[in-house]
Amino acid sequence: MLDDRGRLRDLSGVVPDIAGAVLAGLPRIDADALPLVEGSPRLGPPVGHVGKFIGIGLNYSDHAAETGMEPPEHPIVFMKATSSIIGPNDTVSLPRGSRHSDWEVELGVVIGKTAKYVSEADALDHVAGYCIVNDVSERTFQSKRSGQWTKGKSCDTFGPIGPWLVTPDEAGDPQNLRLTLDLNGERMQTGHTGKMIFSVAQIIAHLSEMMSLQPGDVIATGTPPGVGMGMSPRRFLAEGDVMELTIDGLGQQRQPVVRDP
Amino acid sequence: MLDDRGRLRDLSGVVPDIAGAVLAGLPRIDADALPLVEGSPRLGPPVGHVGKFIGIGLNYSDHAAETGMEPPEHPIVFMKATSSIIGPNDTVSLPRGSRHSDWEVELGVVIGKTAKYVSEADALDHVAGYCIVNDVSERTFQSKRSGQWTKGKSCDTFGPIGPWLVTPDEAGDPQNLRLTLDLNGERMQTGHTGKMIFSVAQIIAHLSEMMSLQPGDVIATGTPPGVGMGMSPRRFLAEGDVMELTIDGLGQQRQPVVRDP
Repeated sequence: MLDDRGRLRDLSGVVPDIAGAVLAGLPRIDADALPLVEGSPRLGPPVGHVGKFIGIGLNYSDHAAETGMEPPEHPIVFMKATSSIIGPNDTVSLPRGSRHSDWEVELGVVIGKTAKYVSEADALDHVAGYCIVNDVSERTFQSKRSGQWTKGKSCDTFGPIGPWLVTPDEAGDPQNLRLTLDLNGERMQTGHTGKMIFSVAQIIAHLSEMMSLQPGDVIATGTPPGVGMGMSPRRFLAEGDVMELTIDGLGQQRQPVVRDP
Repeated sequence: MLDDRGRLRDLSGVVPDIAGAVLAGLPRIDADALPLVEGSPRLGPPVGHVGKFIGIGLNYSDHAAETGMEPPEHPIVFMKATSSIIGPNDTVSLPRGSRHSDWEVELGVVIGKTAKYVSEADALDHVAGYCIVNDVSERTFQSKRSGQWTKGKSCDTFGPIGPWLVTPDEAGDPQNLRLTLDLNGERMQTGHTGKMIFSVAQIIAHLSEMMSLQPGDVIATGTPPGVGMGMSPRRFLAEGDVMELTIDGLGQQRQPVVRDP
């Protein structure tokens, strides 16, 4: 936990993990009463025991235009394997044979209370908080291996989450956040969640018509323009690259890129 | 656990759950030394803490012919939400608005040891055992809601698993098993795992090129002919229906069908 001065505090005496029932009612905590964390330890994902890692495709009107595809009538839904999840500053490792791995900065929504058949008006009551997600995607696996996007979305290390789970009172309006992604210091993606075709509330309501959303589920809500696949010429991740992501108020991520041996 | 005479024995004194590390090396157990279970309790899923619930599409040559689709070049991979998992004889509840929910008897493969970049020859060493899966599927959600099959595959109660996790030594050759599904006592599906386009070993090897398979992951390996969508006229699940599934040596499932209020 960060205190008001941005110092890291140790939550382990207060909650066993930021997962499950804890997400339904994060306790009010006096950060100054918690022990300070020494040094700069690795940050893991800010939510544990993720049951579902759900992705939304083509959800920014300006990104849909970039891909040349029609905006969808309903949210496009795919799953990322939960085994793809890593911490916000961990290393992304390209799988063997990957030549078309790509970046996608996205607003992540963490469910706090079970949602089933919820209305758009009530949907945000089920949110524990927000975080950055890098929906790393292997485009050839995603589209050229006989089907279903999950193949390109689920590779190990393709799901950096965090650094912080920012509660709704601190995050503010989820449809008023700027997102950026830099590759090797060069700005690739600039976006604004106001350009979402389906809002966070609409996405939760839609998903909850089909499946219950449970505490710890994470929804990656789609990416703005500027992915490598959309460039001319196309550009993809290579060993030695560094991705840096930001979303207003949610902090930043930084992942070096290597390749599986 | 079943003993040699088919009586239910209580494993809870031996393992905390059939999950995680337990699956990597199920202990040799003398069933006769375990307490007998009284009565006929509900059976839950035979594997706990499922991290990934992976489905393979169009994997039987005779089912592919039935759908009129070309056999795929690589396995078609989708994810079922783990929140869809229920016990083998639990009630399947159709979601609101569902008019095209369908049945799919499938051979389920439970991973016992982490698999990453495994060869086809070594793949079956990573299997903890086999079980029946009913890959219940809402065809409209699957295909007519802007995309990705997971929408129709992930509804709550759409993943009955079990009753037994049958270890490989007892299950025998996974490509030599007959499968059946009856609806209200009438045979709908009859299949044989020898008709799989991609064998269990090939599926594991293929998936492991993209993501690590971990203990407790479940793979539903595709369905043989006889789904309701393939009939003329088409036939779908209705309240009051009963599905009964069998696979050689893996037992049987029985699910009554209701509808979400």
